[in-house]
Amino acid sequence: MTVTIDENRLARAALTCVAEPADPAMGALLRTCAPVQIIAALNEGRVPSGAGRVAGLDRALQRWGARLGDAPTAITLDAWQRDGIQLLCPGDPGWPGQLEVLGDAAPWGLWVRGSADLRYACLRSVSIVGTRAATSYGAHVGLEMSAALAERGWAVVSGGAFGIDRCAHQGALTAEGVTIAVLASGVDEPYPLSHHGLFEAIAAHGVLVSEWPPGRRPTRPGFLVRNRVITALSRGTVVVEAALRSGALNTARHARDQCRPLMAVPGPVTSPASEGCHEIIREWGAVCVTGARHVLEHLAFPGDELPAAAARGPVLPRDALDPVSRRVLEAVPARTGRGPARVAVSAGVDFDTVMRCLGGLAAGGFVERCDRGWRLRKQA
Amino acid sequence: MTVTIDENRLARAALTCVAEPADPAMGALLRTCAPVQIIAALNEGRVPSGAGRVAGLDRALQRWGARLGDAPTAITLDAWQRDGIQLLCPGDPGWPGQLEVLGDAAPWGLWVRGSADLRYACLRSVSIVGTRAATSYGAHVGLEMSAALAERGWAVVSGGAFGIDRCAHQGALTAEGVTIAVLASGVDEPYPLSHHGLFEAIAAHGVLVSEWPPGRRPTRPGFLVRNRVITALSRGTVVVEAALRSGALNTARHARDQCRPLMAVPGPVTSPASEGCHEIIREWGAVCVTGARHVLEHLAFPGDELPAAAARGPVLPRDALDPVSRRVLEAVPARTGRGPARVAVSAGVDFDTVMRCLGGLAAGGFVERCDRGWRLRKQA
Repeated sequence: MTVTIDENRLARAALTCVAEPADPAMGALLRTCAPVQIIAALNEGRVPSGAGRVAGLDRALQRWGARLGDAPTAITLDAWQRDGIQLLCPGDPGWPGQLEVLGDAAPWGLWVRGSADLRYACLRSVSIVGTRAATSYGAHVGLEMSAALAERGWAVVSGGAFGIDRCAHQGALTAEGVTIAVLASGVDEPYPLSHHGLFEAIAAHGVLVSEWPPGRRPTRPGFLVRNRVITALSRGTVVVEAALRSGALNTARHARDQCRPLMAVPGPVTSPASEGCHEIIREWGAVCVTGARHVLEHLAFPGDELPAAAARGPVLPRDALDPVSRRVLEAVPARTGRGPARVAVSAGVDFDTVMRCLGGLAAGGFVERCDRGWRLRKQA
Repeated sequence: MTVTIDENRLARAALTCVAEPADPAMGALLRTCAPVQIIAALNEGRVPSGAGRVAGLDRALQRWGARLGDAPTAITLDAWQRDGIQLLCPGDPGWPGQLEVLGDAAPWGLWVRGSADLRYACLRSVSIVGTRAATSYGAHVGLEMSAALAERGWAVVSGGAFGIDRCAHQGALTAEGVTIAVLASGVDEPYPLSHHGLFEAIAAHGVLVSEWPPGRRPTRPGFLVRNRVITALSRGTVVVEAALRSGALNTARHARDQCRPLMAVPGPVTSPASEGCHEIIREWGAVCVTGARHVLEHLAFPGDELPAAAARGPVLPRDALDPVSRRVLEAVPARTGRGPARVAVSAGVDFDTVMRCLGGLAAGGFVERCDRGWRLRKQA
């Protein structure tokens, strides 16, 4: 059976419509069956050929089949693409490799909307999460920490929710860094509604990511399922404020189960919003971090010089850069900074392109911001 | 050479006058020479017979000899005793055995003033220490934690200083528990002066302890030397607030070096007074505690039932109690509480005695306070 890339992409898009993320039956089925085989079988109302022994497969097939009508056509995919929405599939050059940690529960595909390169950004990324009911203390710490990490070229991953999530995204945006919101709704479907403006800003300077197709509204269990992607996409997770038995602790549990570095910010013991942080420091061995410096120390790449965060080498070879980014990189001076407009002129690209490339290059460890614009990062 | 107990006690008293606590030359000398031998030799201006190879002994002997005039006579000792000041010596029944952890740096003797039995109290004791420049947050937490521990029959050890120390003592006093102040001045020499009233209250319901003889004023290095006794006397140490490079972190270092459980209370990362706490949680592995319950969990005796702190067994066999305490214990009912005045009548002792004994019995795990007075602690 020959499968073209487009057929595969269309089948993956259908999978994100018919099966909930992390559905164990679909995860098991994908071990032995290609997405096109699965969708073809669903269309024909039969068990996919090559399906091994999968628990609860019959009921799962019924469940998925009932939603087949939601699957997008090639025309819909094209329309979404014109709206800036793309589907990343496993095996794509832009697919973030660290999602492998999820095993069978890896996303069937990721819908993305935004200017940043998800794979580059995730190579040097930190998730900053916490309670929706943030205190002014937590909001302050989240904002400061996120801005400080973004300034040093780290992408900040969070869930786009009220409270700490919002501060995490906002801090990175304030520092003109890259931020990634992993949503439990479609990337064109802002939730909460009042974050519409925030999500547009994230799309302009970072990426919106979702396992659910465009147009999908969030469900309560979806938020918890989504949390595993937040931690899997990032090198480490910081919990800024979390009550006991909160969604933020669910995210923390994913980080722990994925063996990803888990950190927590302490707070007043009199504040219920810090109770979860203290709990995971004491009981789970989460590292107690009080600022961006500690986060960087804990997530340092081998060979990184610390705490001089500026002296870090790139995480990718130059050859792996796309041609436009390479041209932009060549236009960035070594010592004194250069403003993005002048870099754009030197590189022969437009302003939006230079900003997107500089963000990716910063996340990749090639360039850094300084007082006078952008310059090459000193190599260790 | 025959040595009577009184001669030995007089010599130990002289040692506390001539040699600074933890003087390594004196510690080494005491391995092979009895205190009376050392004082006799000092009086005669010669090296004590039996002195092994002790580094810097000649200069040490000069140093000590110059202060021989400060040593108290038997008459002075008697007068101090009438003022309620006693000298505890190694080997005395009341000597706290856990001071052995200090090795050569163990105190030559301990001057004590107060109503509580130091040895009993220390068997179930926690030191609560911290910065003199406590914030209102730290003061609140220190007071609450100390009161909660004292209510559960734990003695609270601290250093009598401004700030967290004061709150630690005050919390225990408020809960009508036992508290121990380890001073860097004589037990009759309040420092800071404004703590005169606090120290009198501690003497009335707990113990003042010092390695320095009565009348001695504190010195700056004395405070740091004193800190090792605070941690050695207690089963564990809690740092409530501490700046980086502070005296409280010096105390924490002693606890760590003595392999005693070390705990710290987190606080806002924006508060310099909590920086030391976060530092030792992150770097030294101090346990993050947010209240008395966590402290009790961490210090539980083997066989203790947790978190039902009330269900703990005694730490000493009944046979080890002094006869008066045994009589008081027999007058305490098993279930419904009995007020101390009625216990005093039943036991045939006066009120002060019954209060002192009940404090010791509570610290020893035999009795506990309840709404209606005192009752036997349920045995695990």
